[in-house]
Amino acid sequence: MLTTRFTQALGIDHPIVQGGMMWVGRAELAAAVSEAGGLGIITALTQPTPQDLVREIERARTLTDKPFGVNLTILPSINPPPYDEYRRAIVDAGVTIVETAGSNPEPHMEMFHEHGVRVIHKCTSVRHALKAEKVGVTAVSIDGFECAGHPGEDDVPGLVLIPAAADQLTIPFIASGGFGDGRGLAAALALGADGINMGSRFMCTQESPISQVVKDRIVEASELDTNLIFRSLRNTARVAKNAVSDEVVQILAEGGEFEDVRPLVAGARGRKVFEDGDLDAGIWTVGLVQGLIHDVPPAGDVVRRIVAEAEDVLRSRMALVDAAPLPA
Amino acid sequence: MLTTRFTQALGIDHPIVQGGMMWVGRAELAAAVSEAGGLGIITALTQPTPQDLVREIERARTLTDKPFGVNLTILPSINPPPYDEYRRAIVDAGVTIVETAGSNPEPHMEMFHEHGVRVIHKCTSVRHALKAEKVGVTAVSIDGFECAGHPGEDDVPGLVLIPAAADQLTIPFIASGGFGDGRGLAAALALGADGINMGSRFMCTQESPISQVVKDRIVEASELDTNLIFRSLRNTARVAKNAVSDEVVQILAEGGEFEDVRPLVAGARGRKVFEDGDLDAGIWTVGLVQGLIHDVPPAGDVVRRIVAEAEDVLRSRMALVDAAPLPA
Repeated sequence: MLTTRFTQALGIDHPIVQGGMMWVGRAELAAAVSEAGGLGIITALTQPTPQDLVREIERARTLTDKPFGVNLTILPSINPPPYDEYRRAIVDAGVTIVETAGSNPEPHMEMFHEHGVRVIHKCTSVRHALKAEKVGVTAVSIDGFECAGHPGEDDVPGLVLIPAAADQLTIPFIASGGFGDGRGLAAALALGADGINMGSRFMCTQESPISQVVKDRIVEASELDTNLIFRSLRNTARVAKNAVSDEVVQILAEGGEFEDVRPLVAGARGRKVFEDGDLDAGIWTVGLVQGLIHDVPPAGDVVRRIVAEAEDVLRSRMALVDAAPLPA
Repeated sequence: MLTTRFTQALGIDHPIVQGGMMWVGRAELAAAVSEAGGLGIITALTQPTPQDLVREIERARTLTDKPFGVNLTILPSINPPPYDEYRRAIVDAGVTIVETAGSNPEPHMEMFHEHGVRVIHKCTSVRHALKAEKVGVTAVSIDGFECAGHPGEDDVPGLVLIPAAADQLTIPFIASGGFGDGRGLAAALALGADGINMGSRFMCTQESPISQVVKDRIVEASELDTNLIFRSLRNTARVAKNAVSDEVVQILAEGGEFEDVRPLVAGARGRKVFEDGDLDAGIWTVGLVQGLIHDVPPAGDVVRRIVAEAEDVLRSRMALVDAAPLPA
């Protein structure tokens, strides 16, 4: 057990969350993480309809009795998915933990509160975290510059963002972006966070429902193998470096607009990467932490060994304090 | 005492280095840091001549009996300073610790080794750290994306860069960029570093020989108040956000070349900021960590309280392990 304000607020054993990931956050992965004492999360919009989401939640319940959550990411869109129906499905299915992301969670809070749902809001800055605290979320999950997907436009890494958040937030919060091992968990706790969220690390596990080719690529890649795209559009995203993201970077650097790259970045192409293992089929997201990922273990092993390693790290660093210096 | 491989290799009490800083690294500051058990560093090129450097070293010796170092930053230049004469002055003055930066330290290693000088090489990537290890430096100091000045072009923050370095280096190394308090030191140790280097934190101390106006600005500023300039020139530098750096960013974003901004970035203008406290006189460097700096204490207090805080942090986080959960 590694007990923090976050584990107590959410009723879990270890302060490790498998954050929502499009095409990745399905029942097997979420259940494996929760079963090991972390918090697994099913991604709502990976399911084609709210009814499919209910079935996915039921499927996870056959795999674990422990609590898991559902991610609901709400983005501005011309043809938005039926967000209200997904929200209703989550509540009706009896899920008690929701991860919100993408926009202010306020419009959902009344309904979630009514049904006893605890909300973890994912954001990328201290000011957005404070806003989420104000509207009554249970905890926040703060993404640093290291993260996969959208890090925001501030470019503040966890080393500075986490203590800055700790100085201003009252509710529990977890750190996200750049975490993949026990050294990272120990560091996050030292910096003032109550736990960590990991995406890329859980993408690269046995229960992760993506092609083995993608997992092998993550193991092989270093911290230098990501691209930041959409910077000029002020919608920056960190994605795997590949032929498609290199092309997007170049088109935008030469003054291109979103319309010029839209066909390249279509979600269906990214999905093809995960399903077919064609690494250059489209854009897919991964974080800098891939440089620290060297294997494809069961997700439960990831949880257990990170907790054990964090404990070892804290214990061994404590031993440095007041240690007798070795003879010169 | 906080004893690590780094403190043992350098013969100091605490793994905290005040890294070389142009116009800032003078005798009073370096001596105050060393006197408190850290490692203070005098910046060679802040002294107009090698003879002035010798006098500055002698002045520091009147202020402390403890070891301090000298920074020698070597940059490509059309009219370079007499680097060999500065190096000779360092050795002749009996200095035994040198921080190198800016380019491969190899050309200096023979002379430094001959005279028993231990070299700490500052760099911004694991591959450069490995190269420095190979040519025989005693330790390396690795700058993450968070740092003031030149972070390189890889944009890898400490959360990922430090463990990546720990996995590959054999010699002791310290982490630099984003560190300002005991939480950061504890995190650096957890991530695998043997200590920390701090610049901005020591700029903002009583012994720092710069205008009080600049120190007050650092206290007031947040982690959002820096600019990255020279990205398009592949010579990125993190500097304080002000009227001049905003203008440089804009000129280069609109396709300008270095010649278009050269008058704006002249070193003499930056020096004016530090000497006269005119915050918009020129470009001056500061790191993201300014968002965590809230006071202007004596430099020795910074060393002592960071060590004490790091010890508290490690102890309190250890207490989370196997803690009995509170009643729900």
